[in-house]
Amino acid sequence: MTEATTLRQDADEIIAAALRAVQPDAAVRRALENRTFPGRIVLVAAGKAAWRMAGAAADTLGSRIEAGVVVTKYGHVMGKIANFSCFEAGHPVPDENSFRGTQAALELIAGLGERDTVLFLLSGGGSALFEKPLIPSEQLQALTQQLLASGADIVEINTIRKRLSAVKGGRFAQLCAPARVFSVVLSDILGDPLDMIASGPACADKSSCEQALAIVKKYGLRLSAGAMALLGQETPKILENVETRITGSVRELCDAAGGTCRRLGYETVLLTDRLSCQAREAGSFLAAILRTHAADGRRLAYLAGGETVVRLSGKGRGGRNQELALAAAEGLEGLNAAIFSVGSDGSDGPTDAAGGYADGRTLASLRAKGLSVYDVLADNDAYPALLAVGGLIFTGPTGTNVNDVAVGLLRAE
Amino acid sequence: MTEATTLRQDADEIIAAALRAVQPDAAVRRALENRTFPGRIVLVAAGKAAWRMAGAAADTLGSRIEAGVVVTKYGHVMGKIANFSCFEAGHPVPDENSFRGTQAALELIAGLGERDTVLFLLSGGGSALFEKPLIPSEQLQALTQQLLASGADIVEINTIRKRLSAVKGGRFAQLCAPARVFSVVLSDILGDPLDMIASGPACADKSSCEQALAIVKKYGLRLSAGAMALLGQETPKILENVETRITGSVRELCDAAGGTCRRLGYETVLLTDRLSCQAREAGSFLAAILRTHAADGRRLAYLAGGETVVRLSGKGRGGRNQELALAAAEGLEGLNAAIFSVGSDGSDGPTDAAGGYADGRTLASLRAKGLSVYDVLADNDAYPALLAVGGLIFTGPTGTNVNDVAVGLLRAE
Repeated sequence: MTEATTLRQDADEIIAAALRAVQPDAAVRRALENRTFPGRIVLVAAGKAAWRMAGAAADTLGSRIEAGVVVTKYGHVMGKIANFSCFEAGHPVPDENSFRGTQAALELIAGLGERDTVLFLLSGGGSALFEKPLIPSEQLQALTQQLLASGADIVEINTIRKRLSAVKGGRFAQLCAPARVFSVVLSDILGDPLDMIASGPACADKSSCEQALAIVKKYGLRLSAGAMALLGQETPKILENVETRITGSVRELCDAAGGTCRRLGYETVLLTDRLSCQAREAGSFLAAILRTHAADGRRLAYLAGGETVVRLSGKGRGGRNQELALAAAEGLEGLNAAIFSVGSDGSDGPTDAAGGYADGRTLASLRAKGLSVYDVLADNDAYPALLAVGGLIFTGPTGTNVNDVAVGLLRAE
Repeated sequence: MTEATTLRQDADEIIAAALRAVQPDAAVRRALENRTFPGRIVLVAAGKAAWRMAGAAADTLGSRIEAGVVVTKYGHVMGKIANFSCFEAGHPVPDENSFRGTQAALELIAGLGERDTVLFLLSGGGSALFEKPLIPSEQLQALTQQLLASGADIVEINTIRKRLSAVKGGRFAQLCAPARVFSVVLSDILGDPLDMIASGPACADKSSCEQALAIVKKYGLRLSAGAMALLGQETPKILENVETRITGSVRELCDAAGGTCRRLGYETVLLTDRLSCQAREAGSFLAAILRTHAADGRRLAYLAGGETVVRLSGKGRGGRNQELALAAAEGLEGLNAAIFSVGSDGSDGPTDAAGGYADGRTLASLRAKGLSVYDVLADNDAYPALLAVGGLIFTGPTGTNVNDVAVGLLRAE
């Protein structure tokens, strides 16, 4: 190769830049840049990335933040931040600490005026960590079991649950009024459905009481009189005091990867930021795209963000990003092209790799080691196969999770 | 909708134009347009589309064609063409009529001069229909059984078989010399590997005698002394008297579809002409692409040609194109967009439909009929489901097969 960099070097640079861009710290700093707040500022951060997001806010706004409450997962508070109260609590099942932390947040926001701002930093896991049930928590748990057993879908389940919470379905923002809520959301759900991320504490709710009651009837749910009364209380439909910045989303992951691709001389094509099909089929599709354009004489980068799935049929080690890359090896054979895919949390499946990489020489390398892509995929054993041919990507834990990005790089022949 | 045409009308127009463009007749006419031949012309046509291709050549060149031999499948000769000799023969297993027809072709080309042209029209199935074995055909059949049982792959099998044939692996073109061969190939193999289509009678062979002998050793094949001697005879590596036009390929199918999309006001993006992944996953991927770009405010058409696969898990009725479309329904929900996929032979799986169509309203229509995409796909039962919502595409048999084309249409919101 006469190129100044190898495809693998390009891949590593693209991955590093993309992961940097979606760090909670970077995401919060971007959201707060050049932003002024007229009155008092208090901070409420909830979710798995709450501690890091709160730290970035403290670094950016300093003593402008009067006080703060942080509720995150056990083991995720790494030290003191300013004068903030940090809570570690249960996830995915809320526990007493979730309720204590949430209560502290509600006390913090009480009595604010209309010039004041609640800086609300939300990340994945917030649904369990930020909660104040309006019925006894054992009752809530029993109802959740009933709902899951009934066959109700996630939208139906949330329609019920939002009404049994003091903070979900936009109610937290309602409680903040007349203060303004500046909500920074680190998204880890494809398509950024705000009402789904942590059940939308600062997001106007779209579901109605009628729908909630219809769901009870449809599935023959048994609820206490108290719970039934709550289903009749409407959630806020309009929240005029909320401004939301979605950040650290898979789209930003794709955009950052794309920016680096362009800097390296590739024309970029964003295919999707909603990828959700089977990992190996996505790899095959991407390889087919690159092979089709191999003779175009252009340097091209195709980007696909999202989260693919793996159907387990074997007992090997691997992850969706590794399977995607490995499955692309056959279609890439002999091309001056590479396909790689990486999980933004730095951990792909139950492995210490963040993802996988394959290029035009990978299939030959696998063959030389006596490895067949077909057999390896049948056993879901991508990790050792990619390890054997230098096709694993290691980043270490990144502290965030905004899904995955897959990139296909094509150089002119 | 305030549009002058519906998405479904656009789809039907795109499909009709694409299928017209890859008809054997149209393909041959395109290849012969504005073409002059200095000396005598004889015609040899072999394959499932041989009769139609020969007819188009006769229409175009008229009495310039001195004589012709057509070898096609039983039931595929629909009448007399000029003074051509038409043979119907065995497929997929060659029979005596295959050998008789091929022998007639070899007699036709004998004695041509260097200004003369053999117009060689090749289509799928030619491997069985156009054959002159150099060993007794029972011996050839027994060897083929051995090869299949040995685990040898298709490239290895062809490496052996080409050397046992008087016409495969470029040898037919060699026999035509010093006459020129103008070869028009109707491709039905992804990527148009000329040496694979009908085992390449007019295509220089890439395999060597050493490779052939190594395959015998590798699999411990038992060959007669005569067959062993043939393995030592080299196939032509350079054919200076051949000019090839690949036509009616999946790329032309995509190009014709794309041309109609542009005429209808869509910007087109050719994703691939090598699609080979699972049908339903391709549908999901395409829907994810459309959803990502739904807010771009452009009228976009994404094209993917190839041939997807279906893994049978149920007992329903359907085909790969129908599964692709049905699987896209969920991702399309609510969008002003459609995804459709059609087999160029007009027959998708064991059904009378050519393919399937889904748009932003299909999922709701399915729901209203009590149909779940998940359940329907689990039972491979796309046909009745699409039938129930007007999502089947019918074209009737088209007389050609150049794989499938899937199209995603997106209109500005």
